[in-house]
Amino acid sequence: MKPDIDYTLYLCTDRQLMTTETIEESVELAIQGGVTVVQLREKECTSREFYEMAKAVKTITDAYEVPLIINDRIDIALAVGADGVHLGQKDIPVGVARDLLGADKIVGATANTVELAKEAWHAGADYLGAGDVFGTTTKSDTKHITLDDLKAIRDAVEIPVVAIGGVNEENIALLKPTGVDGAAVISAVVGQKDITAAAEKLISNFQEA
Amino acid sequence: MKPDIDYTLYLCTDRQLMTTETIEESVELAIQGGVTVVQLREKECTSREFYEMAKAVKTITDAYEVPLIINDRIDIALAVGADGVHLGQKDIPVGVARDLLGADKIVGATANTVELAKEAWHAGADYLGAGDVFGTTTKSDTKHITLDDLKAIRDAVEIPVVAIGGVNEENIALLKPTGVDGAAVISAVVGQKDITAAAEKLISNFQEA
Repeated sequence: MKPDIDYTLYLCTDRQLMTTETIEESVELAIQGGVTVVQLREKECTSREFYEMAKAVKTITDAYEVPLIINDRIDIALAVGADGVHLGQKDIPVGVARDLLGADKIVGATANTVELAKEAWHAGADYLGAGDVFGTTTKSDTKHITLDDLKAIRDAVEIPVVAIGGVNEENIALLKPTGVDGAAVISAVVGQKDITAAAEKLISNFQEA
Repeated sequence: MKPDIDYTLYLCTDRQLMTTETIEESVELAIQGGVTVVQLREKECTSREFYEMAKAVKTITDAYEVPLIINDRIDIALAVGADGVHLGQKDIPVGVARDLLGADKIVGATANTVELAKEAWHAGADYLGAGDVFGTTTKSDTKHITLDDLKAIRDAVEIPVVAIGGVNEENIALLKPTGVDGAAVISAVVGQKDITAAAEKLISNFQEA
């Protein structure tokens, strides 16, 4: 059965930004701080490295019963038994991924317009990532969207929507009025000295907003 | 059922080297010259581009009933219904790929030592690519092997072995005494002005050696 995911604090990994030696350490500290779902997102590595990393991270997410989503690579997700994949507009189409993964896996998609959001939803996406909402420093090919754009996307679909792009402990509360289900973070968690405390603070700032 | 592949002239694609406008044109001209199996090998592109390319090339290989192998990406191979994958040492392990693809798909592996060749064979590989035999110009991370090394690999396993790396119409006949089942080519075919004639010449030079 498809896992029921809490999208409140959605961690995307990035080895380049991590303050710990291993990716497993970062993920474990982040989960201890309350991260509710983890996406392994590593572009600059070979398939073998990505596979080995996914296996290693899955031992952590399994231990804490937190869902693991793999960015882009459906084969890696299948190989390690992850909970699903996240697909950007430059990845394999959502409908094709659904056919390969079956009904029990999570297929997430990036959508930064209402039109793309509806398209991904109708193609079978389980949730959407929408942004760049606050100006990311970790992706260069993104397009800025306003909080109104985000709200329009949120209102246009009946699946969870996660805001992404430059979310930090100062601005995360601003997301609340848009109705989004959660926030995706990279550097605001794994780039911090105290990863666990950073995750805790983000969660409480979002929930108490 | 697993296709019975003739490995005599094994074409790997490379858009950077192609003399035609589209990859489909190069593949079609090469097949018309006698290429017996096609591997789509494109590293510098997004997953979506690779998927679209694989779909396009498959219309050609299907029309000529030539098997299509996808480099590295098991998900792309599954998505387009290709005949199998080719895996380098930096890709997903052979055994994992076999589990994902099932018994009816081709899993090929790169092996440039007798030890790696036996390992891949025992892990379930259907054929091996061995090289770099003549000094490739298209890959930078390869290790040169001698014709004796190639023969030792050929003798160590009971699956087809394809020589790769700098094979051209002058040196292809030198492969015959090693007992290999075929030669893999990139620039010697798709980098030529007359792709069809180049493939024909390679085949005849190999078969008449």
